[in-house]
Amino acid sequence: MQTVRVNLGPRSYDIALTSTDPAGFAAFARRAAPKAKLALVVTDANVISHASTVASGLQSVGIHSQTAVVPAGEASKSVARLEALYDALAELPADRGTLVVAVGGGVVGDLGGFAAATYNRGLPLLMVPTTLLAMVDSSVGGKTGVNHPKGKNLIGSFHQPAGVWIDTAYLASLPDREFRSGLAEVVKYGVIQDPEFFEYLEANAAAILARRPDTLVHIVARSCRLKADVVEQDEREETGLRAILNYGHTFAHGYETVGGYGAWLHGEAVAAGMVGESRLAERLGRIPVAVTDRQVRLLTAFGLPIAGKPEWATEALIDVMRRDKKSQAGKLRFVLPTRLGHVELVDGVSEDLVREVLRT
Amino acid sequence: MQTVRVNLGPRSYDIALTSTDPAGFAAFARRAAPKAKLALVVTDANVISHASTVASGLQSVGIHSQTAVVPAGEASKSVARLEALYDALAELPADRGTLVVAVGGGVVGDLGGFAAATYNRGLPLLMVPTTLLAMVDSSVGGKTGVNHPKGKNLIGSFHQPAGVWIDTAYLASLPDREFRSGLAEVVKYGVIQDPEFFEYLEANAAAILARRPDTLVHIVARSCRLKADVVEQDEREETGLRAILNYGHTFAHGYETVGGYGAWLHGEAVAAGMVGESRLAERLGRIPVAVTDRQVRLLTAFGLPIAGKPEWATEALIDVMRRDKKSQAGKLRFVLPTRLGHVELVDGVSEDLVREVLRT
Ligand SMILES: NC(=O)c1ccc[n+]([C@@H]2O[C@H](COP(=O)([O-])OP(=O)(O)OC[C@H]3O[C@@H](n4cnc5c(N)ncnc54)[C@H](O)[C@@H]3O)[C@@H](O)[C@H]2O)c1
Ligand SMILES: NC(=O)c1ccc[n+]([C@@H]2O[C@H](COP(=O)([O-])OP(=O)(O)OC[C@H]3O[C@@H](n4cnc5c(N)ncnc54)[C@H](O)[C@@H]3O)[C@@H](O)[C@H]2O)c1
Ligand SMILES: [Zn+2]
Ligand SMILES: [Zn+2]
Repeated sequence: MQTVRVNLGPRSYDIALTSTDPAGFAAFARRAAPKAKLALVVTDANVISHASTVASGLQSVGIHSQTAVVPAGEASKSVARLEALYDALAELPADRGTLVVAVGGGVVGDLGGFAAATYNRGLPLLMVPTTLLAMVDSSVGGKTGVNHPKGKNLIGSFHQPAGVWIDTAYLASLPDREFRSGLAEVVKYGVIQDPEFFEYLEANAAAILARRPDTLVHIVARSCRLKADVVEQDEREETGLRAILNYGHTFAHGYETVGGYGAWLHGEAVAAGMVGESRLAERLGRIPVAVTDRQVRLLTAFGLPIAGKPEWATEALIDVMRRDKKSQAGKLRFVLPTRLGHVELVDGVSEDLVREVLRT
Repeated sequence: MQTVRVNLGPRSYDIALTSTDPAGFAAFARRAAPKAKLALVVTDANVISHASTVASGLQSVGIHSQTAVVPAGEASKSVARLEALYDALAELPADRGTLVVAVGGGVVGDLGGFAAATYNRGLPLLMVPTTLLAMVDSSVGGKTGVNHPKGKNLIGSFHQPAGVWIDTAYLASLPDREFRSGLAEVVKYGVIQDPEFFEYLEANAAAILARRPDTLVHIVARSCRLKADVVEQDEREETGLRAILNYGHTFAHGYETVGGYGAWLHGEAVAAGMVGESRLAERLGRIPVAVTDRQVRLLTAFGLPIAGKPEWATEALIDVMRRDKKSQAGKLRFVLPTRLGHVELVDGVSEDLVREVLRT
């Protein structure tokens, strides 16, 4: 078992990583929540079997649990589902020490995490991510929340987990498209923070796609460490540093909105978004074309898109970017690479330049 | 204008106190939220006029606002009302810098505060308390939340305000019974933390009941300071220190539950609760009878009850106390005075002793 420590003072916690130690979970849960006697396991319909393994593990260390199953999919990140979890917690009945265990992808993590954040002013939370995206992104950093008809993740709060248990064996059942989508965020960490990690991904693309256990553990561990490095310095998105995680995401937000949620998975939009934003950096003279080309090759190897669909209108995409909260006072703002492994926040990018990039 | 500073590191804030400076609010709001352009004012039907004064003040410093009015009363602390506030915030539309301003009693503060805590992962919050209870208790300390059918304040989180503006002139319209009820918590601070303040209350009871402006500002300021002292040392109820604020509240919880919410106001239950718990301390040999007697005289002067109603069955009261979260493993646990101005957490108090006190 490998461990990534997230250092946040009194809110510090461990991310445990394994591909071979399913039984280790119980001991980890006990350590993360030494006094818990009761737990609510939150999961979705596609991963019930993983949730029941988790429930047995909890039972083996004296933590009795109930399981709340939500339908798979983004629609479960709603106030209505949240209320159902509050009811389930009240039924247990939960007290201050009751553990919430989220077994699933980012949807279950965000929803279950927010219930934990707000029940009894905060219950201990264990994350057991089962998608690659949840392992490398949504389980790390403490963001929890649900959607509002007017906006994604509009209702939420920061609530750091007591621990994260990552068993890459769970990825065996993950559909290929979901797996590849998660790789986009992995590539992102290489571009924004770690050129050697980017090279590792280039050199090991085949092993990654074949989901070789040791390779998976390595890329997940490195991604968690890199995200944790950012979160440790800007836990609540106050200093601006955490914004570097948005590389590729301004374009991606355009693709997701114009394409309609569902046309592309999030990671697909991020992949094409990174290429677009990297081209922008080229035109601003910030990077040589080779930096973009290497991203294009790697993302292509991972079966990810490198440009928006031709039918998505440039002006509609620009419109979304203009409204994006990462832009201020009419000017467009982007997180752009200065070299492989480093990005900067760049203000005042002209819309015409963005148009040019979108049209090529 | 007097100021009480609440020191919580990056979450520090000022409580401004005045009885003569209604115009000062606007400048205070601007200082507390330097970048805000937009605000949602949350209020209840009884204090709309105060809310519109607040809205004009905001406008005068360039903060445009909308007002959300909830029905007066505890029933407004619900997930349904919370959702309505989320909708109002989305309508504005609110962004990360939008201010939530709670103008009202503890109900409006807890509800509006929780909306602020959870919209966009946390909006800046200004508290403008209009009841004595809200001025001396609920506006200080960062607890926010709503009720669940299974329990009061079951859904909530800690969210410190950016500032608290207290104008004791608002108390002019407060019904007498609400005012007296708020005094119970004021007396509590004297008993648990500050014998000189207790003496001040004894010496100035008539001026307080006459709501003399300078006297009101003094007792509110001192109460805020005393509560802030506790909150600064135990912001999130983790070290146990914050428990001293529960003096009188274990008995009170019994009276409120057995009497049914509505029979007594919270402060009335706390008044009788303090006397009961003080008698318990006497029987345990922790304090002389004089300590209780002084509380009895002061609470009586304030028109507050000093014992439960005779029709409330002792066993029913004990039952509630047994279930109270402040009790552990079947034993009863109380916060009890050791002298005027000091309390301790006492475990393992026998139910028979509690019975004896309840029956006298
Ligand atoms: N909190 C954060 O910091 C953060 C960061 C990024 C994304 N997110 C959120 O994460 C969500 C997306 O997460 P996601 O991509 O994991 O989506 P998801 O949770 O919807 O999971 C994707 C699909 O895979 C299924 N699935 C999950 N694990 C499986 C497994 N092991 N085997 C088979 N099927 C499995 C799910 O049932 C679902 O159908 C979004 O709501 C997004 O807003 C949050
Ligand atoms: N967050 C905390 O730390 C904390 C602490 C103590 C209590 N509380 C909560 O506070 C709530 C009780 O607060 P409350 O006693 O202020 O009740 P409240 O907010 O219901 O106000 C009491 C009544 O007075 C009216 N009112 C308010 N200001 C007025 C004014 N200036 N003039 C005329 N009428 C006015 C209200 O409309 C209401 O009818 C409870 O829900 C309790 O759980 C919270
Ligand atoms: Zn992303
Ligand atoms: Zn109280």
